[in-house]
Amino acid sequence: MYPSKYSFSWNAMDVGPKRDLLGELAAAVRNGSDMHFGIYHSLFDWFHPLYKKDKESGFKTQDFVKSKALPELYELVMEYHPEVVWSDGDWEAPDQYWNSTGFLAWLYNESPVKDIVVTNDRWGQGCPCKHGGYYSCADRFNPGTLQKHKWESCTTIDRESWGYRREARFADFYSIEEILKMLVGVVSCGGNLLLNVGPTSYGKISPIFEERLHQMGEWLKVNGEAIYKTRPWPKAQNDTLSSFVWYGLISQYLTKSSVMYTQGKSSPAVYAIALEWPDNEVLHLGAPKPTETTEVYMLGYDKPLRWKSVKDGMVVDFPNMSRVSSKWSWVLKLLDVA
Amino acid sequence: MYPSKYSFSWNAMDVGPKRDLLGELAAAVRNGSDMHFGIYHSLFDWFHPLYKKDKESGFKTQDFVKSKALPELYELVMEYHPEVVWSDGDWEAPDQYWNSTGFLAWLYNESPVKDIVVTNDRWGQGCPCKHGGYYSCADRFNPGTLQKHKWESCTTIDRESWGYRREARFADFYSIEEILKMLVGVVSCGGNLLLNVGPTSYGKISPIFEERLHQMGEWLKVNGEAIYKTRPWPKAQNDTLSSFVWYGLISQYLTKSSVMYTQGKSSPAVYAIALEWPDNEVLHLGAPKPTETTEVYMLGYDKPLRWKSVKDGMVVDFPNMSRVSSKWSWVLKLLDVA
Amino acid sequence: MYPSKYSFSWNAMDVGPKRDLLGELAAAVRNGSDMHFGIYHSLFDWFHPLYKKDKESGFKTQDFVKSKALPELYELVMEYHPEVVWSDGDWEAPDQYWNSTGFLAWLYNESPVKDIVVTNDRWGQGCPCKHGGYYSCADRFNPGTLQKHKWESCTTIDRESWGYRREARFADFYSIEEILKMLVGVVSCGGNLLLNVGPTSYGKISPIFEERLHQMGEWLKVNGEAIYKTRPWPKAQNDTLSSFVWYGLISQYLTKSSVMYTQGKSSPAVYAIALEWPDNEVLHLGAPKPTETTEVYMLGYDKPLRWKSVKDGMVVDFPNMSRVSSKWSWVLKLLDVA
Amino acid sequence: MYPSKYSFSWNAMDVGPKRDLLGELAAAVRNGSDMHFGIYHSLFDWFHPLYKKDKESGFKTQDFVKSKALPELYELVMEYHPEVVWSDGDWEAPDQYWNSTGFLAWLYNESPVKDIVVTNDRWGQGCPCKHGGYYSCADRFNPGTLQKHKWESCTTIDRESWGYRREARFADFYSIEEILKMLVGVVSCGGNLLLNVGPTSYGKISPIFEERLHQMGEWLKVNGEAIYKTRPWPKAQNDTLSSFVWYGLISQYLTKSSVMYTQGKSSPAVYAIALEWPDNEVLHLGAPKPTETTEVYMLGYDKPLRWKSVKDGMVVDFPNMSRVSSKWSWVLKLLDVA
Repeated sequence: MYPSKYSFSWNAMDVGPKRDLLGELAAAVRNGSDMHFGIYHSLFDWFHPLYKKDKESGFKTQDFVKSKALPELYELVMEYHPEVVWSDGDWEAPDQYWNSTGFLAWLYNESPVKDIVVTNDRWGQGCPCKHGGYYSCADRFNPGTLQKHKWESCTTIDRESWGYRREARFADFYSIEEILKMLVGVVSCGGNLLLNVGPTSYGKISPIFEERLHQMGEWLKVNGEAIYKTRPWPKAQNDTLSSFVWYGLISQYLTKSSVMYTQGKSSPAVYAIALEWPDNEVLHLGAPKPTETTEVYMLGYDKPLRWKSVKDGMVVDFPNMSRVSSKWSWVLKLLDVA
Repeated sequence: MYPSKYSFSWNAMDVGPKRDLLGELAAAVRNGSDMHFGIYHSLFDWFHPLYKKDKESGFKTQDFVKSKALPELYELVMEYHPEVVWSDGDWEAPDQYWNSTGFLAWLYNESPVKDIVVTNDRWGQGCPCKHGGYYSCADRFNPGTLQKHKWESCTTIDRESWGYRREARFADFYSIEEILKMLVGVVSCGGNLLLNVGPTSYGKISPIFEERLHQMGEWLKVNGEAIYKTRPWPKAQNDTLSSFVWYGLISQYLTKSSVMYTQGKSSPAVYAIALEWPDNEVLHLGAPKPTETTEVYMLGYDKPLRWKSVKDGMVVDFPNMSRVSSKWSWVLKLLDVA
Repeated sequence: MYPSKYSFSWNAMDVGPKRDLLGELAAAVRNGSDMHFGIYHSLFDWFHPLYKKDKESGFKTQDFVKSKALPELYELVMEYHPEVVWSDGDWEAPDQYWNSTGFLAWLYNESPVKDIVVTNDRWGQGCPCKHGGYYSCADRFNPGTLQKHKWESCTTIDRESWGYRREARFADFYSIEEILKMLVGVVSCGGNLLLNVGPTSYGKISPIFEERLHQMGEWLKVNGEAIYKTRPWPKAQNDTLSSFVWYGLISQYLTKSSVMYTQGKSSPAVYAIALEWPDNEVLHLGAPKPTETTEVYMLGYDKPLRWKSVKDGMVVDFPNMSRVSSKWSWVLKLLDVA
Repeated sequence: MYPSKYSFSWNAMDVGPKRDLLGELAAAVRNGSDMHFGIYHSLFDWFHPLYKKDKESGFKTQDFVKSKALPELYELVMEYHPEVVWSDGDWEAPDQYWNSTGFLAWLYNESPVKDIVVTNDRWGQGCPCKHGGYYSCADRFNPGTLQKHKWESCTTIDRESWGYRREARFADFYSIEEILKMLVGVVSCGGNLLLNVGPTSYGKISPIFEERLHQMGEWLKVNGEAIYKTRPWPKAQNDTLSSFVWYGLISQYLTKSSVMYTQGKSSPAVYAIALEWPDNEVLHLGAPKPTETTEVYMLGYDKPLRWKSVKDGMVVDFPNMSRVSSKWSWVLKLLDVA
């Protein structure tokens, strides 16, 4: 995808589009936005004859690593200054074969991005979920419980493929409800969501992907404060009574609107995200313990919600749905709950 | 699109897919379904040298008509027995040039589909909206008022094109709300909606089109009785007070569920279709005149709605939106209104 | 090969080279040269569905002839004014099917080339070698005896194909000796030689063809007076004693150099063309009867040859081969022989 | 042209023909013949980014040499056991950059072909015509005088190109007379002739090349004993009186037919090759000094030739050309000349 010196005639500048796709993307991402730019790199190249030769030797020779994999990794960092180095294709050989620790020592101590770069954990057989920067573990990893180490769920809008499939049918794409369910579950348990869309061979994003991304934007515009810059709630991730409710915890990073509600409160806000609209407009929550000063708001609705304590928690009255801005996955903001 | 004897080497069997696309489509449409099969035919062929020659003669010669246009029209009817013959490409030359009346006389009196076929109105310069079967007039025709002659609005889900455009972006496709607005407005005024989706060059329907069609199916499953086999309401099409409301009138053709409500009533049901959810859950209607026996139902909601007479018409209370099956364009069924 | 109105999308202007190949060739042939321009036309089109339909009817219908074959023949003559119309592809159907006599009547009596055009004999089943202009009979026709009707031997430099074959090997091409043998034998018997070379798909003549044509030019430069504007010798075509010798007879059309030799002679020159160099430099001829005034010359050699009468004819002494201009097929010019 | 591990995706196995062209050629050459198999290798790769990088450094870095040029040279020798390694593309950088001496030491001392391999001289800037195996010097090198070191003239049948040119015309190819002139001049001066023909993209040898090679074979069948296993004549290469005559000297390696003539003679045969047929059949030679026992033969003619001494050498009478087997470049064999 870039004009590598180490893959002559086998890159997007020499064949196909004849463009430095990676460089153009980096420039576009950085042009006036505060987005971060990261790169994906596959350590191995399934059919490269030098890799196959090394593999036949039981990974005792390192011809592929020395003439292709590592030279390209250094080249990528030096040329594009990525803020994320997302490594992949590591599972067949140990990190000693890949010289991963040598590269990472350079990346964190000497490279031009040493102060800002983050990486994942796919740096050698046995590394994922054990060593590295954040853990990406296996594809579509989604444990459902709070993790001790920072992690990421990497997944795709097309249920079956990372690349664009022109034969994909409508039913093959996750609905916005399904995507929000993944997002909410992952964030509640301390993870990031990496959500892939594969471009077409003619360089476009399919309208169905564009629609899903618009829908995510629409939802986050109303409910983003429950996602961005929050931390998991130590007490619970998934509600004990309403299993379709997941929690987040607001931290010191407050948005303007959230300041309004938390001012004068002694504890951070807790977000309860309901993936479904409760029957009869009544939501029964078991995890939060209300106090006398507890207040309950719904993001995208302009009045406080009525609630009351019950023996095993609290019940919250939902408003008429037609008055709520959010179309899917409604977020309650709970103040002064234990 | 079919192996015409009159377009040797220039049809889908001789070049490109090497398949009788029309024949395969006809078989698929007729295979166990009650769908009707129709064909589209363009009278002219922009760049055909015989057509250009005829045009240069001021349409005094008919070489193109005699060696291509008419032989192919007869061939299409004889080979595929279409129930609709949708003619196009007529506007440059008068129907005398095309021998349209001769063909139509044969079609209605002698052809194998004489007892079932319908056609549109594009049979010669000056014909559309004046002569023919139903009127298709210009593309995207949508008059907004009741028409005396049966008509059709032919349009596309991609706002800009009849063919598939791989460069189309999400914003280029009509939303389901916009499509339902077209459907409801057209049907209220006595028209059919012809809604086109262009297939890709590799023979697939793009997922974004599939999604819109699924959404239409979802809506029609709940609200179809206000569309199929209804007639326009003679009294009004568009409500005098709530401009986002359009009317339909149920006729002798009753669906099972509609029988339930109309049994014992002296007049047919009137459907009022609200494209928007009314503010404060209260819809104010000016066209229907309620009586003592008037009843109001919402399709996809299981209880009668509360309503009351007011000086200039009636007001109807909408239920909590979360209890309603339909996501867009809600249909009221009014019984015993004048 | 030309932009026919009757083969829309299936001609060299609409597909492939996007050029009027026939028109460009006509212009090139006529540009300042005295060459004549002719066209080849195949009556049938093997796979045309209208032709197949006519064939199935036992050639009772003429749809193909009326909508394609004849319109194109007229179009060709009107557009390109060919001096030769070389018809082919006639053998499956009678001339009545093709309306050949109607077309030929127009061609000879009314067409713009009526005063100059010639045609061949492939105008319907049973016509070749019986009716028509000159006779082309079957491909590679070469009877070896004098014919009563003007005829032509149509053949190819590639032994196996009229079209260019990129897989052809050197041994597949006639040598110059073989080509001269065909030329000499055909002309002696009153025929023309039509010698085909197939162009490559990229519009070039293969160098091996170019070489053969250069070799023919080289030979004709020295020996052309024995070919052009000669007539067959009524007395013999092939020598009775030396079978590798063929005869021609010079007529009233004398070239400058031939005038030199024939001045004052009472009869036209007779050419004896030896395809081989005779053993021991002595050629024994049986057909010509020498007289006291007989003289013998060799084209491309500057002195008269020695000869003497023998009982059964005459013997001619050939010179040292190194002094002769011609490399192959040596021509003797005999003056005052009976 | 072979599946190199060091040019992944950029070789004839991975792209284009998907075949090991070099390996198939090697097998074909060695299958039952006594031909020798050699390989051509270009040290540089004009547009390889690593080569360009090395070049920018003034050839101080050797990334290209270490990761591509040398690994491929070793791979070629190990895989295909060539008997000739024909190096090229050396002129921009010194042999130190290419590590040429290291490779050659391995090639001659340790490689599997160490006892049989020969190489040329293009191993670094300044090497050609000075160091190496035999000297190929510049393309089409043809000095016209005897060289001290074994050398080769590398040239092409197409005057302008090493590769096949489909646009080449007949005049662009050397005639057999021109090729024999090169062959004879080169061999007389102690060189080899390397005569290239470029294959077409579809894997065929153009018939015009095949014809030239057949003509060479035809000539060598008659005259090969003056070429194969001869040595230059120390006394003269080009005759002092007849400049179109070149000399060769037969050595201890005698063919059967040559034994016949030299038996009992005190000195080896001297060959005088006349590129032209002499005027009046008389050849005047200045270099050989005849003796009383001198005999003169012409290859392809079955009787001794008449000759006589003259003041400045000898004159030889040529026979009637029609009795001689060779068509071009006639070879005299002189026995007992000084």
